[in-house]
Amino acid sequence: MQRVVVGDYSTSGFRKETQQSIFDVAAGAGSALLKHEIVLQSEVEAVIFSSCSSDQYTASILAEMLGIKPKIAIRVDNLCNSGTSAVISGYGLIASGLCKSVLIVGAESRNSPGRLLSWDVTRGSFSLPIYWATMYARNHMRTYGTTEEQMASVVVKNRKNAFKNPNALYQKEITISEVMSSKRITEPLKLLDCSSLCSGASAVLLLSKTMASKRVETPIYITGIGSQTNSASLAEVMSNLNNTGTSRIAARDAYKMANVSPKDIDVAELHDAFSIMEIMAYEDLCFVDRGEGGKFIEDSDIATNPRGGILGCGHPLGATGVSQVAEITSQLSGNADRRQVEGCKIGLVHNLSAAGTSATVIILGTE
Amino acid sequence: MQRVVVGDYSTSGFRKETQQSIFDVAAGAGSALLKHEIVLQSEVEAVIFSSCSSDQYTASILAEMLGIKPKIAIRVDNLCNSGTSAVISGYGLIASGLCKSVLIVGAESRNSPGRLLSWDVTRGSFSLPIYWATMYARNHMRTYGTTEEQMASVVVKNRKNAFKNPNALYQKEITISEVMSSKRITEPLKLLDCSSLCSGASAVLLLSKTMASKRVETPIYITGIGSQTNSASLAEVMSNLNNTGTSRIAARDAYKMANVSPKDIDVAELHDAFSIMEIMAYEDLCFVDRGEGGKFIEDSDIATNPRGGILGCGHPLGATGVSQVAEITSQLSGNADRRQVEGCKIGLVHNLSAAGTSATVIILGTE
Repeated sequence: MQRVVVGDYSTSGFRKETQQSIFDVAAGAGSALLKHEIVLQSEVEAVIFSSCSSDQYTASILAEMLGIKPKIAIRVDNLCNSGTSAVISGYGLIASGLCKSVLIVGAESRNSPGRLLSWDVTRGSFSLPIYWATMYARNHMRTYGTTEEQMASVVVKNRKNAFKNPNALYQKEITISEVMSSKRITEPLKLLDCSSLCSGASAVLLLSKTMASKRVETPIYITGIGSQTNSASLAEVMSNLNNTGTSRIAARDAYKMANVSPKDIDVAELHDAFSIMEIMAYEDLCFVDRGEGGKFIEDSDIATNPRGGILGCGHPLGATGVSQVAEITSQLSGNADRRQVEGCKIGLVHNLSAAGTSATVIILGTE
Repeated sequence: MQRVVVGDYSTSGFRKETQQSIFDVAAGAGSALLKHEIVLQSEVEAVIFSSCSSDQYTASILAEMLGIKPKIAIRVDNLCNSGTSAVISGYGLIASGLCKSVLIVGAESRNSPGRLLSWDVTRGSFSLPIYWATMYARNHMRTYGTTEEQMASVVVKNRKNAFKNPNALYQKEITISEVMSSKRITEPLKLLDCSSLCSGASAVLLLSKTMASKRVETPIYITGIGSQTNSASLAEVMSNLNNTGTSRIAARDAYKMANVSPKDIDVAELHDAFSIMEIMAYEDLCFVDRGEGGKFIEDSDIATNPRGGILGCGHPLGATGVSQVAEITSQLSGNADRRQVEGCKIGLVHNLSAAGTSATVIILGTE
């Protein structure tokens, strides 16, 4: 079986407003990657487009815009988890021997659908994601004594990281008191505890180890994949608000496949659409024991969300998972500029959809 | 690398009208398959939903409806070619070792989008698929002397086959003169030269060879896969209307991977959204020489479109490719009831999207 290398990546600026169509947004990241000339257009054997857009035939349109005539062109979607799902699909195409090179582009424009979780009648009228985040936050505070200040410190850290990332939506450091005094939307979540939907695109190039050998100086391998879907509806989640069970299973399987343990992780991109979700991710990924997530932020030895996470970068749904993989690849190959985590060898990507009803963990490494 | 077996299948009735949501339509085929008990719900490791629906998080919704908590749940779409693209994605997940079992469900309800090719400005106002089919038909008649009667005979054959298929939309045999005297829509295409969009669903279960070993009496293997995307726009197709170049490349690659030649094929499901497309498929798949497709229908030694094809079964976009794979599996395993092709060992599925801008060929065999 062929090992799979993340051979290249490119992320566009995530922005609140854009006049560009989703295809222009997507093609921006794709063509920026192709300009690096790791592969020629004629060498790209599959194009996977990750997006929640309701447009049709999108992967073929994108391929044509990029001047690629791939064997396989498909669109993959899975809400917030779309990008990481697309990476799994691309991994399958290469590891199975069907393709030697797969270009994955995730993109969203501001008018993409998928913002309201309107399919799920178990949510009643609480269809905005902030309602499930509120339940998680209140439960964590009640059960483990997690504080609003601890949640705010996640935001402060990720905004600080985003300040070093020119592609991030937010380019301004903030303080804990600014988070605490921002508009209270629910009890206990404030405006700055929440991420923002936005436009943006990110692209990664997966290559077989053989194809990467003469093209990529420091090959970064996908060494572990774990994914779990427990439901689509919130009702299934509410029986246990102490963790996102899908993340725990995804992490367990990814660690096992990569043959590493949580303490081996040097750098991680975590799903932080709301500040409480990063605290829960520390626990679900076994970085700390259950209930200890709130304190972990203060004395972590794992660099978390160096690109700024979703709180700092914004959340173009189909692009987020791809940009997480791009960031960890840049970190492990030592090309993360001002936000470089020194000496990192093993990295992790964690992504989820819709209250954690599904989750994905991908582990990358230099060997 | 794990070999991939089509371990089970189920197709629902394709119907013109339905009150069912796309999820009910999809779950119908999925639950019918699960009732065969080749696998338990707890053994299904991935659910891939093939559909052009604009609904969000569809694979996870379908999984929950079916009582499955899979590792991976994704939606794949690629217009008419969606179902075959989903099968390729599932193949990748199993052959790579990521999963041992993948349930693929394709479904469409009548209000699914994807009917108008509205993204493609190179079509001008000719956005309905019949316009490109008309160009192909006129070119074939002019260049090779293909006749309207030959095209009509494709329809007659496929309607005759559909008459033996209880799931087919059309349950009535027709004559060449009925096709010839049906309403003329373009010059030279009549109403009965065209397929109908409809509601419907089909499911196939892919298994690793190891997992299939004690569960499936006659394992049917996926032995060859070829796929090619040349463009999304018609402008790219019009430079050569003599063939769909994507089908030729897809067929070449699939034959090579399966290590078979066109003359080895016993039974084939071909993309016949319009009668001319089946005639061109004979040529593109190298069943006959270029220009000989019109005559092939009269003296073919390959059983074509035994389920009735798209002309006989109707065309629920996301379901079509899945139902083609289901049909060939049923034929090769000797379970095709009244439409059984005797002694068939090697089968082929051919599918395409949007004027043949992309195409897929999948070869299945008993060994």
